[in-house]
Amino acid sequence: MAASKEGFLEAKHEGVALLARERAAASFNVRAMTHLLDGGEEATAEKERVAAMVEEHAVLQASDRYFVGRQESLARAMQKFKEIVRLTLAAGLDREDGVRMYYYVNEPMPTSLHHGMFIPTIQSQGTDEQRAEWLPLAAMFSIIGAYAQTELGHGSNVRGLETTATFDVETDEFVLNSPTLTSMKWWPGGLGVAATHCVTHARLMIDGTDYGVHTFIVQVRDLEDHTPLPGIVIGDIGPKFGWNTADNGYLAFDSVRIPRNQLLARYATVARDGTYTKPPHEKIGYGTMIRIRSMIVAGASDALARACTIAIRYSAVRRQGTTRGRDGGEMVVLDYTMQQHRLLILLATAYAFHFTGEYMMELYRRLQADLEDNDLSVLPEVHATSAGLKSMTTTVTADGIEEARRACGGHGFSQFSGLPYLYTWYVPAVTYEGDNVVLALQTARYLIKSCRQAADGKPLSAGVAYLSARPGATCAAANPADMGRLDVLAATLAARAGEAVRAVTGRLDALLASGVDYDEAWNHLMVELCAASRAHCEYSVVRNFAAAIATVECPDLAGILTALCRLYAASRIEADLGSFLAQGYLSKGQSQWVKDIVHATLAVIRPDAVALVDAFNFPDFLLNSALGRKDGDVYVGLVEAARSAPVNEHLRPIIDKSLFSNLHIPSRL
Amino acid sequence: MAASKEGFLEAKHEGVALLARERAAASFNVRAMTHLLDGGEEATAEKERVAAMVEEHAVLQASDRYFVGRQESLARAMQKFKEIVRLTLAAGLDREDGVRMYYYVNEPMPTSLHHGMFIPTIQSQGTDEQRAEWLPLAAMFSIIGAYAQTELGHGSNVRGLETTATFDVETDEFVLNSPTLTSMKWWPGGLGVAATHCVTHARLMIDGTDYGVHTFIVQVRDLEDHTPLPGIVIGDIGPKFGWNTADNGYLAFDSVRIPRNQLLARYATVARDGTYTKPPHEKIGYGTMIRIRSMIVAGASDALARACTIAIRYSAVRRQGTTRGRDGGEMVVLDYTMQQHRLLILLATAYAFHFTGEYMMELYRRLQADLEDNDLSVLPEVHATSAGLKSMTTTVTADGIEEARRACGGHGFSQFSGLPYLYTWYVPAVTYEGDNVVLALQTARYLIKSCRQAADGKPLSAGVAYLSARPGATCAAANPADMGRLDVLAATLAARAGEAVRAVTGRLDALLASGVDYDEAWNHLMVELCAASRAHCEYSVVRNFAAAIATVECPDLAGILTALCRLYAASRIEADLGSFLAQGYLSKGQSQWVKDIVHATLAVIRPDAVALVDAFNFPDFLLNSALGRKDGDVYVGLVEAARSAPVNEHLRPIIDKSLFSNLHIPSRL
Ligand SMILES: Cc1cc2nc3c(=O)[nH]c(=O)nc-3n(C[C@H](O)[C@H](O)[C@H](O)COP(=O)(O)OP(=O)(O)OC[C@H]3O[C@@H](n4cnc5c(N)ncnc54)[C@H](O)[C@@H]3O)c2cc1C
Ligand SMILES: Cc1cc2nc3c(=O)[nH]c(=O)nc-3n(C[C@H](O)[C@H](O)[C@H](O)COP(=O)(O)OP(=O)(O)OC[C@H]3O[C@@H](n4cnc5c(N)ncnc54)[C@H](O)[C@@H]3O)c2cc1C
Ligand SMILES: [Ca+2]
Repeated sequence: MAASKEGFLEAKHEGVALLARERAAASFNVRAMTHLLDGGEEATAEKERVAAMVEEHAVLQASDRYFVGRQESLARAMQKFKEIVRLTLAAGLDREDGVRMYYYVNEPMPTSLHHGMFIPTIQSQGTDEQRAEWLPLAAMFSIIGAYAQTELGHGSNVRGLETTATFDVETDEFVLNSPTLTSMKWWPGGLGVAATHCVTHARLMIDGTDYGVHTFIVQVRDLEDHTPLPGIVIGDIGPKFGWNTADNGYLAFDSVRIPRNQLLARYATVARDGTYTKPPHEKIGYGTMIRIRSMIVAGASDALARACTIAIRYSAVRRQGTTRGRDGGEMVVLDYTMQQHRLLILLATAYAFHFTGEYMMELYRRLQADLEDNDLSVLPEVHATSAGLKSMTTTVTADGIEEARRACGGHGFSQFSGLPYLYTWYVPAVTYEGDNVVLALQTARYLIKSCRQAADGKPLSAGVAYLSARPGATCAAANPADMGRLDVLAATLAARAGEAVRAVTGRLDALLASGVDYDEAWNHLMVELCAASRAHCEYSVVRNFAAAIATVECPDLAGILTALCRLYAASRIEADLGSFLAQGYLSKGQSQWVKDIVHATLAVIRPDAVALVDAFNFPDFLLNSALGRKDGDVYVGLVEAARSAPVNEHLRPIIDKSLFSNLHIPSRL
Repeated sequence: MAASKEGFLEAKHEGVALLARERAAASFNVRAMTHLLDGGEEATAEKERVAAMVEEHAVLQASDRYFVGRQESLARAMQKFKEIVRLTLAAGLDREDGVRMYYYVNEPMPTSLHHGMFIPTIQSQGTDEQRAEWLPLAAMFSIIGAYAQTELGHGSNVRGLETTATFDVETDEFVLNSPTLTSMKWWPGGLGVAATHCVTHARLMIDGTDYGVHTFIVQVRDLEDHTPLPGIVIGDIGPKFGWNTADNGYLAFDSVRIPRNQLLARYATVARDGTYTKPPHEKIGYGTMIRIRSMIVAGASDALARACTIAIRYSAVRRQGTTRGRDGGEMVVLDYTMQQHRLLILLATAYAFHFTGEYMMELYRRLQADLEDNDLSVLPEVHATSAGLKSMTTTVTADGIEEARRACGGHGFSQFSGLPYLYTWYVPAVTYEGDNVVLALQTARYLIKSCRQAADGKPLSAGVAYLSARPGATCAAANPADMGRLDVLAATLAARAGEAVRAVTGRLDALLASGVDYDEAWNHLMVELCAASRAHCEYSVVRNFAAAIATVECPDLAGILTALCRLYAASRIEADLGSFLAQGYLSKGQSQWVKDIVHATLAVIRPDAVALVDAFNFPDFLLNSALGRKDGDVYVGLVEAARSAPVNEHLRPIIDKSLFSNLHIPSRL
């Protein structure tokens, strides 16, 4: 855009005034909500301190992220990583600050799995000696580790992995091999360019016997020149749906020898003479898994909150349509009830998931204590529910980000909206740490087991206590106000979950009784099983949300949170009314009340919508969005961003005269 | 991947055998289905001829698409355009071949709107003189045109556009101006780098009077050196969610003068003295719109069919899970009923949309004839339905592509799957040519009008005849077989649409009667209005599909198409059972039959799944997918693609020793 011609484009900063008006109308104190979400004033301060460091740091910027190609993105990610290492080692920041810094840098990195999986795996599966040997090297980044489990042909079904580790009793080594094409490791982050080492999963073979999949530490690249070690075939698997800053890689072994002490041997061991000792029953690992899943659920809330922040701020500024708004201009699109139905339910969902993430983290802490006392009573429930919650929350969040993007109309399709990046950054969460269908089925398995226990009159843990309710109950709500109570909504969701689990258990038993084998019966019922898992999880989320609200002292905060919880719960019922009606739990009249509650609650939340996204407290640089700018100056944001697009500098030469010289027309018609 | 180390990776070409087995089991002749879809043997031959030309042509390749950055993508797209121009001008290909060539090149292009909107707009809105002046220049590509309607601040609401065209009676010119920041043209394809001209929309101002939005032709760049003309601020709006090959741009006018004869004046005119003549009532334009929308609906089918082809072929080859398959190995994932529920319903949908696209195109042809006879009777219905169909089919297709991508697990996240590209290529269809919510509301408006006509006892056109059925009817199906008949399923969908339209009409009337103003009442009911539109459209699709099947002579083809139609219809009912139960049309028992029908029909279609996607006849180069390869050799495809990734050539240097030299550890631990 030629500078000389810009004067006439008088900027229209209307968005600033519109957002200010929204903020003035809020029913609650935004800062107080932020503290509530963060877990206290101090926690907010800690976050803001690290955010400021990242924002100010030249190397950690992402302001030109949307222009940078893959190679350059990867190179920069490595620079950022080194800088974070430098800062954490030199400036003496603690581990939590390091984690926060990664959060604000907001890119999958070649080194993400070093922290995320390499170190934790050695921690949990390594012997004391192995921990002592490897963890300091990893902590000082003298080595960079990856987590190499998945193979080209094997992801969900870990038991099917083909890589072999054959014990050679002569040399006291394991010999790693990739016997087939499908046995190549494929997808592990870090393998592409960064990793020097990895933990990897291979079938342990001793004397011709296959002892199943075990975990080993292997060096893959030279520490001096970073070239692959002999027998190692390694590289990057190529471009993905986003994730340009990550180096998911492949790896194959051609008779790679590692010493015996590189089998992670906390639970399973191989003696010098090849004697194998299998792991004892192991539930210790569950704690870690619940921690990771609570982080994923909290992360779902966080990602959805970002999408809501962008789309809601923009929708409060975007005027469109022939309908006149309250101020006589075109109506802002957030005032359309359809836009509210799309965005405010997502907002309620982001809040709902937040409190379930908190709840799970709390459970994890309690579990750690329980485990020390050898009390494993709540473990199976929490473990099973956490699988379903990972599945449900990540699917809903991925869909929700994309819905928010589309709700921004054309501008949502621009990278400058920040939403395309957010979507592709987030969406593999539906696949990694367990494919969402596979996880939902795990939860279903637990629910069926619990249902059978209930039938046998055995006691149930609190989260599935609804399974012991008598079938055929109906909703007691006598009027719309009743229906909108959080306990009534939660009971309604529990009733659906109960019916879904009972029904599918009954069908499973019937199939088994008729002689169908288990796998076939299971397969036959998968759609219902996944629905049962989801029903259970939606109930759990409402239960956790309502419980959290009960502890909020400030009435303003409790008030708006109650509205959000009501909206979330009622919208879940509205979206699946068929189930409630078919089981006869809701009458037709009650089902209409639920719809009315959704509608009425949208109107309650609308005036607080901007304040509710402000409370998430995302800095502008993190959202990296012209539409989600805190100041509301969205159009100036788009224009400034377009002006900085390199394409406008470089593309003139692609047009050549030859194309236009066919007819010898004058240059100006 | 070092060549020397590859020998040990023995390729496992199992996918080839698996797909061959699938194909051998098909119940129908694939080639016959292809001809049916294409509209005859000759049509298939024409497509295949052009496909072969594109496949063999060096310049038109897309084999390295996933590695190419934005600038380079744009430059190549211009090259491809020039090559297509050269081929069509020189090799004497006809217009339809040109269109087919663009189809197989499969990229949004800087010149797409030249054909798509620039030429058609002049065609439909230009006077005979204007057509004679501009169309030959455009046809010979002496000029490249864009369609510049949308502004930074105005998309859906065209009446809100701010750009002005002020008549200067002195000079007999219009003076174009962009009075505000939000009045900048923003999004038009072609403006970024390619366009020399555009048709643009501006408010016609004569003597201080605003005559509303009119359409003008403006030159924006010099034909010799391609620099912006004086007063033109123009450029590219920057990176998007994909669409790297397109140059959506911005444009602002600073007192740009154009002669009076550049107002497109077929319907509205300005005389030499400034006298304005407004357009007569104009319905001619509807024909064109219906044609475009029928192309969009057909395009939805096509895009969804591509996603199904990739995901279904891959799922028929991908083994995963502890369940044993029929051959004793791990089960192929397409044998899981959940995977079938996800993918085969999408497959049925792709077929269903195809026949609605055909139906609309047929209507368009009939309309053209009717219009000549001045018979406009079916026009309003077709016009209104086509808005809703555009909305419904594009949303379902976008969601469906992404669902298919996720159903491929981790490998679906690789660009090499072809699915990320397909998604971002397709998804703006939910926004352009009318935001999908805005369009659904247009259809709802028509449905309400028709409902009132029905109440007044006036005759209805066939597509909305269901509105005159008595309310409160119930489904007569006495057993599951009855329920699965296409006419019964269609009647069920019609009943829901009827109830939805009647209910929302009643609520609207009640609100209006209570004194609420129209816009507010309308806004209040938007969620129900959109649901009514969708219900109408789903019924329409089933109606068209069933009607098309009735004309198919070959029993094998009719048989499998009937199963697809049944699955589509039953799945639409299953997805919204609440509506059918709440209105009392279906009993609880019948609602269970519908679920059972879905389940049973998945099993019927499963053995034909691969053949059904084969019938779409997409060449491998178009899918550009390692997972969707016709030969099933998916793992070899992924490995070969990764091997060719430039990142594996260029990234070594980003790792430097400094990072690993902290502790002076030996290079091999
Ligand atoms: C961005 C990204 C990063 C990753 N990082 C790592 C990493 O660092 N280290 C690593 O080891 N791996 C990594 N992975 C791999 C990831 O763990 C796997 O992709 C994931 O476990 C899913 O497995 P899959 O890809 O084999 O899918 P599949 O299991 O092949 O799934 C394909 C389809 O089959 C269905 N399906 C599979 N099994 C069943 C069943 N039993 N019942 C019903 N349906 C079934 C699924 O629902 C899905 O629709 C990463 C993947 C991605 C996308
Ligand atoms: C890839 C791409 C290519 C394009 N190419 C061109 C081109 O060549 N030429 C051109 O002129 N334009 C082009 N456009 C612009 C396109 O036509 C507009 O984006 C489209 O019309 C939608 O309008 P909008 O962006 O203003 O969305 P908005 O209308 O601002 O929509 C924002 C939100 O408000 C809601 N909303 C808006 N109005 C109403 C209402 N009345 N009632 C209820 N809800 C409402 C919408 O549902 C949406 O959720 C292109 C856009 C894209 C993405
Ligand atoms: Ca969706």
